[in-house]
Amino acid sequence: MATGSNLSFILNKPNDVEFVEKPVPTLKSAHDVLVAINYTGICGSDVHYWVHGAIGHFVVKDPMVLGHESAGTVVEVGPDVKTLKVGDRVALEPGYPCRRCGNCLDGHYNLCPDMVFAATPPYDGTLTGYWAAPADFCYKLPEQVSLQEGALIEPLAVGVHIVKQARVQPGQSVVVMGAGPVGLLCAAVARAFGATKVVQVDIVQSKLDFALGFAATHTYLSQRVSPEQNARNILETADLGVGADVVIDASGAEPSIQASLHVVRVGGTYVQGGMGKPDITFPIMALCLKEVTARGSFRYGSGDYKLAIELVAAGLVDVKKLVDGVVPFDKAEDAFKKVKEGQVIKILIAGPNEKLVTESSLDTAVDEAKVQVAEEAKKESGATCC
Amino acid sequence: MATGSNLSFILNKPNDVEFVEKPVPTLKSAHDVLVAINYTGICGSDVHYWVHGAIGHFVVKDPMVLGHESAGTVVEVGPDVKTLKVGDRVALEPGYPCRRCGNCLDGHYNLCPDMVFAATPPYDGTLTGYWAAPADFCYKLPEQVSLQEGALIEPLAVGVHIVKQARVQPGQSVVVMGAGPVGLLCAAVARAFGATKVVQVDIVQSKLDFALGFAATHTYLSQRVSPEQNARNILETADLGVGADVVIDASGAEPSIQASLHVVRVGGTYVQGGMGKPDITFPIMALCLKEVTARGSFRYGSGDYKLAIELVAAGLVDVKKLVDGVVPFDKAEDAFKKVKEGQVIKILIAGPNEKLVTESSLDTAVDEAKVQVAEEAKKESGATCC
Amino acid sequence: MATGSNLSFILNKPNDVEFVEKPVPTLKSAHDVLVAINYTGICGSDVHYWVHGAIGHFVVKDPMVLGHESAGTVVEVGPDVKTLKVGDRVALEPGYPCRRCGNCLDGHYNLCPDMVFAATPPYDGTLTGYWAAPADFCYKLPEQVSLQEGALIEPLAVGVHIVKQARVQPGQSVVVMGAGPVGLLCAAVARAFGATKVVQVDIVQSKLDFALGFAATHTYLSQRVSPEQNARNILETADLGVGADVVIDASGAEPSIQASLHVVRVGGTYVQGGMGKPDITFPIMALCLKEVTARGSFRYGSGDYKLAIELVAAGLVDVKKLVDGVVPFDKAEDAFKKVKEGQVIKILIAGPNEKLVTESSLDTAVDEAKVQVAEEAKKESGATCC
Amino acid sequence: MATGSNLSFILNKPNDVEFVEKPVPTLKSAHDVLVAINYTGICGSDVHYWVHGAIGHFVVKDPMVLGHESAGTVVEVGPDVKTLKVGDRVALEPGYPCRRCGNCLDGHYNLCPDMVFAATPPYDGTLTGYWAAPADFCYKLPEQVSLQEGALIEPLAVGVHIVKQARVQPGQSVVVMGAGPVGLLCAAVARAFGATKVVQVDIVQSKLDFALGFAATHTYLSQRVSPEQNARNILETADLGVGADVVIDASGAEPSIQASLHVVRVGGTYVQGGMGKPDITFPIMALCLKEVTARGSFRYGSGDYKLAIELVAAGLVDVKKLVDGVVPFDKAEDAFKKVKEGQVIKILIAGPNEKLVTESSLDTAVDEAKVQVAEEAKKESGATCC
Repeated sequence: MATGSNLSFILNKPNDVEFVEKPVPTLKSAHDVLVAINYTGICGSDVHYWVHGAIGHFVVKDPMVLGHESAGTVVEVGPDVKTLKVGDRVALEPGYPCRRCGNCLDGHYNLCPDMVFAATPPYDGTLTGYWAAPADFCYKLPEQVSLQEGALIEPLAVGVHIVKQARVQPGQSVVVMGAGPVGLLCAAVARAFGATKVVQVDIVQSKLDFALGFAATHTYLSQRVSPEQNARNILETADLGVGADVVIDASGAEPSIQASLHVVRVGGTYVQGGMGKPDITFPIMALCLKEVTARGSFRYGSGDYKLAIELVAAGLVDVKKLVDGVVPFDKAEDAFKKVKEGQVIKILIAGPNEKLVTESSLDTAVDEAKVQVAEEAKKESGATCC
Repeated sequence: MATGSNLSFILNKPNDVEFVEKPVPTLKSAHDVLVAINYTGICGSDVHYWVHGAIGHFVVKDPMVLGHESAGTVVEVGPDVKTLKVGDRVALEPGYPCRRCGNCLDGHYNLCPDMVFAATPPYDGTLTGYWAAPADFCYKLPEQVSLQEGALIEPLAVGVHIVKQARVQPGQSVVVMGAGPVGLLCAAVARAFGATKVVQVDIVQSKLDFALGFAATHTYLSQRVSPEQNARNILETADLGVGADVVIDASGAEPSIQASLHVVRVGGTYVQGGMGKPDITFPIMALCLKEVTARGSFRYGSGDYKLAIELVAAGLVDVKKLVDGVVPFDKAEDAFKKVKEGQVIKILIAGPNEKLVTESSLDTAVDEAKVQVAEEAKKESGATCC
Repeated sequence: MATGSNLSFILNKPNDVEFVEKPVPTLKSAHDVLVAINYTGICGSDVHYWVHGAIGHFVVKDPMVLGHESAGTVVEVGPDVKTLKVGDRVALEPGYPCRRCGNCLDGHYNLCPDMVFAATPPYDGTLTGYWAAPADFCYKLPEQVSLQEGALIEPLAVGVHIVKQARVQPGQSVVVMGAGPVGLLCAAVARAFGATKVVQVDIVQSKLDFALGFAATHTYLSQRVSPEQNARNILETADLGVGADVVIDASGAEPSIQASLHVVRVGGTYVQGGMGKPDITFPIMALCLKEVTARGSFRYGSGDYKLAIELVAAGLVDVKKLVDGVVPFDKAEDAFKKVKEGQVIKILIAGPNEKLVTESSLDTAVDEAKVQVAEEAKKESGATCC
Repeated sequence: MATGSNLSFILNKPNDVEFVEKPVPTLKSAHDVLVAINYTGICGSDVHYWVHGAIGHFVVKDPMVLGHESAGTVVEVGPDVKTLKVGDRVALEPGYPCRRCGNCLDGHYNLCPDMVFAATPPYDGTLTGYWAAPADFCYKLPEQVSLQEGALIEPLAVGVHIVKQARVQPGQSVVVMGAGPVGLLCAAVARAFGATKVVQVDIVQSKLDFALGFAATHTYLSQRVSPEQNARNILETADLGVGADVVIDASGAEPSIQASLHVVRVGGTYVQGGMGKPDITFPIMALCLKEVTARGSFRYGSGDYKLAIELVAAGLVDVKKLVDGVVPFDKAEDAFKKVKEGQVIKILIAGPNEKLVTESSLDTAVDEAKVQVAEEAKKESGATCC
C-alpha cells in the first residue's frame, strides 16, 4: 500500500517549477497497479517543456508534473491483475492508448489519437511518489536488471522502435546521425539486431569518442561541407561502397537528414527518428530514383518495452554506461539544468520513495537489486553530478 | 527473318531529328529474339531528350534512336529460346539488367547499376524497324490484347510498380497527385488492386474530367492555397476522415508532394512516382510523427510487365482509352510535337514495319488481332491526330 | 431502449433445444451498445453443437444460446460511445478479446487466449432478442447494405481473413478446395483481391455449378484418384502450368489438403481454412522442397469486418446470392434441420425483434432498407425454406 | 593458370568410388573464374549418393564427381570479371541458376527449375582439382576467414537460409529439432539474429552436450513419449510459457516434426529444414487453430553466402568448432566412412591442389591465412581423423 510521500515535481510555467505533495492516486480499473517511483530519467522533451512551456501544439496551460522515464516498485495490484504482485520491480511505459480505435486494434497503439501520455499536456508525468497504471504497461524487471537500468528502458524502447522501423537485418551496415542518448541507443540496438557495421555521426568529437566505446564500429565527425560530400566521406570512412543499407536520423538536423538520403544505398532504408524543424529542404529525387524506403518513428509500440528489457537482461545493450549520475528527488531542478547545459548523457532522479522501498520487506531478489542499485548510486554519485 | 526496313527515328541533338536506315540488329545471345516493331508510344522522357538533349546526368552526346514503349512481332528466335516462337506478338520491356549484381540476384533488377535502357544515352531506343532482346524481356500478348494495347504496357508497368511500392490493399483509399498518363494508370491499377476510393488530383479540370471517366472515384482541382488546405479539401471531397491510406505522387510537383504528406493518414503510405526538382521543401515532421512509410518508385521490375498484361487481358485496366490517335512512322516528329504541346494523353507511332507484319502469314489469332488493330487505327485516326 | 422480447433459442443438450424468455442484458461498460437482433445465419459449428454437444474440447455443459452470425439495430448506447447512435444498423462481430494480452496489443486479437466468443461454451450466442457488446465490435452498415446482408458479414469475414492469410495478390491464380459457404466466399474475396483465375474444387457437381455462377472462373470435380493425380487434373483444367500461386483449403478433408500441397507452385502459399481431423497424412517434403508457405487461419481479426462490409458495399461480393431463404424466429429448429441435411447454402433466422424494428421510427435510410429487406424476405420465402 | 592436378573423386555406382585424372575445365563465359579447390566438406547428401546411388528422383546413372562444400583459390579470371582476381581465396556456391526464369528474376534463384547443382546427378561435384564457375557465385573470403572456414560456408548458408525463412527476430525463442551440422548451425545463426533462447533437441546426449558448448542456451533429450508430451517438456525445460516463437526442424524425423507443431506458440513460425519421409502424420489442426506459419527451406539463395561469410568474419558463428579433422585428398573414401558411421560432425578433405596453393606466390594476406590453415590442419589432424 502507498504509505509514503506523493511529493511531485511540477512545472507551473516556463522555468517555474516547484515540489508539491499531491494526493496518492487510486486505481481506476481492476486491471491497474500502483507503483512507487524509484528512479526517473530526464528526456529532452521534459527540458523543452521546462524551458519553453510547449512542444508544437502541446502547450502547458495548467501546472503539470514532469517526467516519463521511470522505474518503480509495485505496492498495490487491482483484483484482475494476474501478471504482477506487490514488490515486483517494473519499468513503466508512460503512454496509455484507448485500446478501441483502428490503430490500437491493428497493433499500432503508439498511433492512437486518444493516447494519454505522461508529461504531455494536459497529463501529469511520473516525477511523483506513486503512479497508477494498467498492469500490461508495467513490465517486470528480471533479477539481473536493476531499477536504475529500468529507468532507461523508456529511451531504449525509443531506439528499439526506430531500429524496428528500419527493419535492420543481420550483416547490414547502419549509419546513425546524432550521438545523443537516442542515437547511442539506436546504435546499440542495431548491433543487437546483427548489424556488422554501425557508423555514428555527430558534430561533437567527444560524443563520437563515447559512441565508439559504446556501440559504434566507426564514427564520423560532420564537416561544414555539402550533404553530398559528408555522405561520400561517411561511405569512405566505413568502407560502405555505394551506400549504407540503413540510415537512421536521430538528430532532427536538416543537414543530417539531407546527408542521410545521400548515404543510403539504392533500395535501402532511412528512418526519421529525431524531431526538428517541421519543414526542410529534402533531396526528394534521391528518394525516388534510389527507391529508398523512408519511415517515421514515433515513440514505441507493441513489444518494444519487452524487447528493450530482454536486450538489457541478455547483456546485449549496456544502458548503465549512459548514466552520468543519480541525484536525490529534491535536486531535480539541478538535474534538469545539467541536461539543458549538455553536461551529461543521462542523469537519474531518485525517489521520492526510494528510501521507503529500500527499507521495506520486499523479496530477496529485489533487496539484492536494491543494494546493488544503492552502491551504484554511491559510486556514481562521486562522478559527474552531486 | 528480318526482311523489312530498319528505318530509325534518331535524335542528333536537341530539336534535331532525322530518319536513318540502320543495319538490322543480330541476336547477341542464344536466348535472344528479334522483334519487328509495330507500335511505339511516346514518353515524357523521349520528349525531354528531344527538347533538352539530357535528363539529369544522362546527356545525349551521340545520335540516339528515341522510343522505348513498344510492341511488336517476333521474327526470329535464338536457339535456346523456348518461350516464344516466330509470329508471337509481344510487349517489349526496354531495360536489360546485368543479372549478376546484388540487386539483380535479389529480385530488384530495376535497381541494377549496369542497366542498359532503351533511349537512355548512350543506348538506342525502339523507334526502329527491328529490335533484338532477351526472350524473357519480351512478353507474349494473349489473344485478347492488341498490339496497340501492347505498346501501352510500358507505362502501365510503371503504374503497376508504383502501386506495388504503395502496397495498396483491397478496401483502401488512394489519392493520386497528377492526372497525366502515369497518374491515370496508377488510379486504374489501384482500382484493380481493390482500392474502393481513388481520388485524382490535378490543376487542369479537363484532365480530371477524363480521370473520372477512366478510373477515379473522386477528383479534386488543386487550388492556390497552402498544401495543408489543399490536403484538408481533398479529405473532405472524398470523405476520407483523418487521412488517405495511400498517396501516390505522379506529378513531381513540389506543392503536390507537400500536400501528399498532409493527406496521408497516420501510419499510411506515400510513394513518389513522378520526377521533378531534385530538392524541395518537405514536411519531414509530418512523415516522422505520423509514422508514414515513404517509398520511391523507379521504372518497373520483376513481374510488373506480366501483371500489366494480365490486367489488360482481364479487362481490369482499359489502356486503349488513353490513346488519342495513331500516326504513321514518318510522322513521328509531329507526334512528338503534339505530346510536347499537351494536346494528347497518348499517341502511338505505327511501324515502320507495321504493314509488313499485317501482310505476313502469321497464325490466325494474330491475324485477327491485326485486323482488329487496323480497324482501331482507322477508327481512331479520325480522332485527335492524323 | 429494449422494450421487446428477449426470447432466446437455447441448446440444453444434443438435439434438445427450446425457446426461453431471458432477461434483457444491460450494458457492462460505458463503451457498450445494446443491439436488437434482426437476422442471424446458421454456421456449421452451431449445427455441430446442436447434434454433438461439443467441438473438440469445447463442451456444452450448461444450456447455451446458439448463433453468432447476426445483424441488428442499435437501441441503446453507452455514455462513451461516439461511433454509433440509436437506430444504426450494425453487423455484430461475436468474439470479444481481452485487449491486454500480447496477441491483442500486437494486432492479433483473434489469437487472444481469453476470447469470449458467442455460442462457444460457456458463452451464450446471438439467437436472442438483445445483445450487448462493445461499440467497436458493432460495425455500422452503409445505406446500400441490408440487414440480411449484414448477417452474412460474419462468414464473409472468415473468408476475408483466410484470403489475407494467403496474401493473395492481383493477377494470381487461386485454387479453393471446398464449395461450402466459406469456400464460396473465399473465392469471391480472392476475385476482389484481383486474382484472375479462381478454381473451385468440390466432390458435389451442383455445388460447383453454383460456384461458377458465383465467383469461380474454373471448377474441378474431385475424382477418386491419388492427390497427385487430382492436383495434375486441377492444373490442367485451369491451365495453371507448374502450379497455383495460392491454394486455400476450405474443406478440412484429408485428400483435399494432400492435393493442395501438390497443386501449389514452387514458392507458393497454402492456407488451411477449414477444420477437420486433428492429424492427417501430409506431404511434408512437398512443403519443404517447394518452399511452400503454409498458414493457418482462425476466425477473423483487425480490419476483417470492415473490409467485408466494404466489399459488399462496393458490389465486389454479392453475399445475398448465398441466401436460400429466411425463416421466422420460432422456426429456428427447422432451419437447423435444413442446414444439417445440406439442403441449403445459407438460411437466415429473422427476429425475434424483427417486427419491432420494422415498426419503430428509425431514420429513413434504415426504413427503406427494412422495406427492401422485407421484400427480399417475401420474395425469398417462396424459395427453398418456408 | 591451372597447372596442377585435376584429380577427381568419382562415384561410379553405390559404394564404388575411384580417383580419376580429368581434363582441367575451361571458362565457359567471360564472367567465369577458375578456382583451385583447397578444402571440401562432406555433406549427408554426398554420403547418401555414395551408399544408395540416388536421392528421391535424382539417380546417379553415369560416374559423377562427388562434393559440393568447397573453398579454393582463384587461378584464372574471365575478361568481364571485375570482382575477383587471381589469388583471391573464395567460398564456392555450388548451384548455378538460369537467371532468366520467373523465380530467378524474382530473387528466388534457389527455386529455379533449371538449376545446375554440383554433385546432383547428372552434374559433377567439387571433389576435383579445378572448378569453373560464374564469378558472382564465388565469394571472396576476408582476411580473417580461413580457407577451412570457407569450406564450411556452404552448410552455414543452409542454416542462414532456414533462419531467414523463419524470420527470427531479436529477443525471440527458437527451438531447433536435431543437432547434426545443419541443426547446430541453425542454432548459431539464430543466436546471431538476436534470439535470446535457443533450445537444441536431439535423441543423442553427446550431441546435445556439444550443442550447449556451441550455440544452444538450452537442450532437451527427446523421450519415447507422445509428441505433445515432448513438446510440454521442451517448453518447461526452457521456460517458454505457452510456446516457442520459432521452431526449426533440422532433423526430418516424423516425431520431431509432430512435436514442432505442438511446441510453436499461437501465431508462431515453424520451418521445415531437414529432409526425411515424403509423407508423415501431421497435426494439421494445430497449424490451423494456432495460425502457425509453416515454411519449407531449400538450399540457399540471394545474400545467404554473403551473410554466412559476414557472420564468420564478425566472429558471430565459430564454424571451426565443427571440424573434427582434415584428411588428404587420397583419403577421401575414409572420410566418407567416418561421416557415414557418425564418428564426426564435419571432416574436411584437403586438395588435391592444396600444396600447390600453399607454395605459390600469393599475396601476403593469403599466405598468412594459409600458414594458419596449415597449422590448424596439423593441430586438428591429431584429433578425430587421421
